[in-house]
Amino acid sequence: MPDRLVISVDAMGGDHGPDVTLSGVARATKFLVPGARFLLHGDAARMEPVLARLPALASVCEVRPAESVIPMDAKPAHAMRRGKGSSMWNAVECLRAEEAQAVVSAGNTGALMAISRLLLRMTGDMDRPALVANWPTLRGVTSVLDVGANIVCDADRLVEFAIMGAAFHRAIHKTARPSVGLLNVGTETEKGHDDVREADRRLRASEFALDYHGFVEGDDIAKGTVDVIVTDGFTGNVALKTAEGLARFFTTTLRTTFTADAMSKLGALIARRSLKRMSERLDPGSINGGPFLGLNGIVIKSHGGADARGFANAIRVAAELAASDFVRQLDDDLSKHLKAPGASATAPAASRPSEGIVAA
Amino acid sequence: MPDRLVISVDAMGGDHGPDVTLSGVARATKFLVPGARFLLHGDAARMEPVLARLPALASVCEVRPAESVIPMDAKPAHAMRRGKGSSMWNAVECLRAEEAQAVVSAGNTGALMAISRLLLRMTGDMDRPALVANWPTLRGVTSVLDVGANIVCDADRLVEFAIMGAAFHRAIHKTARPSVGLLNVGTETEKGHDDVREADRRLRASEFALDYHGFVEGDDIAKGTVDVIVTDGFTGNVALKTAEGLARFFTTTLRTTFTADAMSKLGALIARRSLKRMSERLDPGSINGGPFLGLNGIVIKSHGGADARGFANAIRVAAELAASDFVRQLDDDLSKHLKAPGASATAPAASRPSEGIVAA
Repeated sequence: MPDRLVISVDAMGGDHGPDVTLSGVARATKFLVPGARFLLHGDAARMEPVLARLPALASVCEVRPAESVIPMDAKPAHAMRRGKGSSMWNAVECLRAEEAQAVVSAGNTGALMAISRLLLRMTGDMDRPALVANWPTLRGVTSVLDVGANIVCDADRLVEFAIMGAAFHRAIHKTARPSVGLLNVGTETEKGHDDVREADRRLRASEFALDYHGFVEGDDIAKGTVDVIVTDGFTGNVALKTAEGLARFFTTTLRTTFTADAMSKLGALIARRSLKRMSERLDPGSINGGPFLGLNGIVIKSHGGADARGFANAIRVAAELAASDFVRQLDDDLSKHLKAPGASATAPAASRPSEGIVAA
Repeated sequence: MPDRLVISVDAMGGDHGPDVTLSGVARATKFLVPGARFLLHGDAARMEPVLARLPALASVCEVRPAESVIPMDAKPAHAMRRGKGSSMWNAVECLRAEEAQAVVSAGNTGALMAISRLLLRMTGDMDRPALVANWPTLRGVTSVLDVGANIVCDADRLVEFAIMGAAFHRAIHKTARPSVGLLNVGTETEKGHDDVREADRRLRASEFALDYHGFVEGDDIAKGTVDVIVTDGFTGNVALKTAEGLARFFTTTLRTTFTADAMSKLGALIARRSLKRMSERLDPGSINGGPFLGLNGIVIKSHGGADARGFANAIRVAAELAASDFVRQLDDDLSKHLKAPGASATAPAASRPSEGIVAA
């Protein structure tokens, strides 16, 4: 591994390609440690005009030409078989080859996960990484996982998510013992299904570096009751998308309200500074950048539609994980878990047929 | 059964008791069919002063004194054992005794479900009723079920929810063939876990009076993609509470925005008519009143915190279900389902240990 921070960037991924990703890198250089460098994978001909407009990047970036781009709608299995030589593949390959400490991509989520699993492998006995959503709350940001990769989760897997989520939150938010809640339909110990109750028992008995809060409910997410919320990928994915849908519902309703007539438009004009602050607060860009947890390496997924500010934030997440003791600590915690009594008593989730947002 | 519409009302349930429930009944008399009558169960001494202020009610209501009230935090098992003689128990008992065609309560959800199952029994081979949420969308209202009673659901149960949800939506919204979606983490047929995929196959092959749309995702709820969304009680409960939490997050953010400074307050004042229309649109009272589906009878749960307008709407739902062919149609559809090839091939969900928001 290089001594200096090196981040491998899939410059072609996302809805906007190099225009946004390179502008994001340029923004990130302003807050990253001096000496940080970037490997930019993609179509050199498309990157050059953008780089010409961003002269500050020349000294900290290296263009690594890639011969193809994985489409946003490609099937993960196809991406694995045919993705070699693409900007995404090469970006992850640099991490495997220890040329970089982290990779950031705004490309196809399923393809990024499949290629990362193939090239980096999972840590421990995990089957596939957990996807983390950074969720804005009344009190800050809560990390919610898994939001779509692991559809059927037994108690073991949920305990692993708790450990990984806490390690991630600690690395990013510098909380020594993040509080962790297990998502359920009620807070009493008898609520929920077998797996969630068994995970609750194990977490109560465990001695991981986390502050286990017990069960939380859906409305605790936006309240910010805890730092980390753990759930299976089916429930987490539905909760996340339900929230995204509702956010659009509110935004649409708000827009309709303030354009309904002349008085409403005048009101919006007068209150514009506060409205702007509100929209900044609700802007997902400020919290963009979710890691794939459980891989032997730091892979950060940026939202496909992120703007330069959002992409820069994904790079910030990558840099903070790379600078922290995250990967080692996670390995330690997970090995402790594997040795804990009762762990892996049930069949591994890997053996159950299930398909998440990412094909096997 | 009486010829005229008679609705049995638990007048003591909810956060506000008779003040709200009786005012709700008074509002409902304005839109119900002429001749509709109400049986008001509860503490006569508390109801009398309220009734004195609502003279129009005297001719259409009958006070049925009840000796106790089930507390909002009572355990369902306790309510079943000790609830006899309470306003809720008596309200449901009137339905069993065919003195009324529907019951409405804003009381303890778990207790209402437990007492209803005990006194009315389930239809078919179902174990417990499905709870329906009326979800406001960009296109109207979508019925989402189950939102908390059935934690572990096999394919059979999900198909039953589709049938019941469609029958409910048809009765309330007069849609001949409501469109039904199955909640999943993606729309391709290979997505999700075994039960959701098996339910999808059966619904595709079925000939129920519904328009099966296939899989939908979390953001389809607020979009209003379909009339009815089917999911297990665990996922549905988390989605509903996640949305409730997010709604409070938005309301709080909006309030902070418009009280931040003098200009913001002025802007809100000028746009107040549109803001009022918006808050009416977002008011859950307009869609209050979720049925327990699968019981031999019409039981409507009003939100505990509903105001008179909300409670009146729950009465409207009860009246519309009572007036429609709902119960017979549901019975027909469910028997057709039980005879369908492949139905009940898996173990009934009843045999699996699980606890929803309602104790067994």
